[in-house]
Amino acid sequence: MSEFAAPSSRARIRRLPDRAAYDADTIAAILDAGVVGHLGFVVDDQPYVVPVLHARVGTAIYLHGSRASRAMRVLGAGAPACLTVTHLDGFVLARSAFHHSVNYRSVVVLGRAVALTEPAEKMAALEAFMERVTPGRWAEVRPPDARELKATAVLRMDLGEASAKLRTGSPHDDEGDLGGSAWAGVIPIRTVAGPPDAAPDLAPGIAPSAAVRTLLARFGAERGD
Amino acid sequence: MSEFAAPSSRARIRRLPDRAAYDADTIAAILDAGVVGHLGFVVDDQPYVVPVLHARVGTAIYLHGSRASRAMRVLGAGAPACLTVTHLDGFVLARSAFHHSVNYRSVVVLGRAVALTEPAEKMAALEAFMERVTPGRWAEVRPPDARELKATAVLRMDLGEASAKLRTGSPHDDEGDLGGSAWAGVIPIRTVAGPPDAAPDLAPGIAPSAAVRTLLARFGAERGD
Repeated sequence: MSEFAAPSSRARIRRLPDRAAYDADTIAAILDAGVVGHLGFVVDDQPYVVPVLHARVGTAIYLHGSRASRAMRVLGAGAPACLTVTHLDGFVLARSAFHHSVNYRSVVVLGRAVALTEPAEKMAALEAFMERVTPGRWAEVRPPDARELKATAVLRMDLGEASAKLRTGSPHDDEGDLGGSAWAGVIPIRTVAGPPDAAPDLAPGIAPSAAVRTLLARFGAERGD
Repeated sequence: MSEFAAPSSRARIRRLPDRAAYDADTIAAILDAGVVGHLGFVVDDQPYVVPVLHARVGTAIYLHGSRASRAMRVLGAGAPACLTVTHLDGFVLARSAFHHSVNYRSVVVLGRAVALTEPAEKMAALEAFMERVTPGRWAEVRPPDARELKATAVLRMDLGEASAKLRTGSPHDDEGDLGGSAWAGVIPIRTVAGPPDAAPDLAPGIAPSAAVRTLLARFGAERGD
């Protein structure tokens, strides 16, 4: 994968720069590990932040939604946008209230979106989208028809102005607090999936498919016991 | 808890209004179930979305951060803000690509923040903050000293313009797709915590405290087996 651009002035991380990363692999890995992002846009000076699904392909990130949604309309018209993807990895418990923190990984993408208009291009993006979230699923289901495709807005944002910020590891306590009696350390946090809950109208005898099993494996399926 | 205000025009949910909720209990439950929110603000027409920790107390929500952080400075100066908290609850796999979805709960809070200035008020807010995320922890650790308190910005946002949006349940497939061979249903998603990872510099013989065990229980601690 090609490198993203060097951080622009406004994409540069100012606070705690030792937690910053701008390399393409780190940014891609954080984006790819997530499913839900938070998309910011502005209407009448008021910022709005809405949850969206996202999928990275190379140095672009795709978003989609109803053509009727305000976020899709505003962004499709070229308004400045910000997409942020965050993973909470753990609670950091220190001996002092002040040094409590969380371990996390986040990426902030600044830029303007471009709305895809060609049906074939939209179809390819939706396939890539589904394959990123649920590999193998596209071939298992009915693809969008012309009406569905028309009702769906697909946006592309470039990762040129992207930056990552993360914290890992143990608490950093002040020297004077180390002799205290409080427990200190990290409580790791992770997301797990499963078990599958079949639709009530699913025909008898249809087991979870290969794509479903792949999705479960991606999110470390919970044991059934 | 008192009721929040009726939705303002700009807080009203336009798309898929059957997924909307404005009642205080629903909004409070979604906020309280989350730890990380996404805060939107605007600088030079560019929206920024940054992850923040949040804690609700009554009909207010508290945020905190370094006094030096841009988000705290911009919001503390009274800029329009948006705080969004989202939980991903499951992947909704339908027989058609178009009807794939996710189950989620989200709350969007619009408004302007107020920066707390009185040290006693800030201290009380920080205690409330820690107690919401990690009940019992405040009494176990060293509280902030005057320097730490001064370095910490604490903001309060009112929940007057808050709305919730959520999706639950099975996929909604088109009649004509029900006879297909694809598996359909929901893959539930949840967050789990643990096991605790003690700090390398923790003195021997200090076991995870009551607050740590409470935090683990809140997030359904993983089995160690």
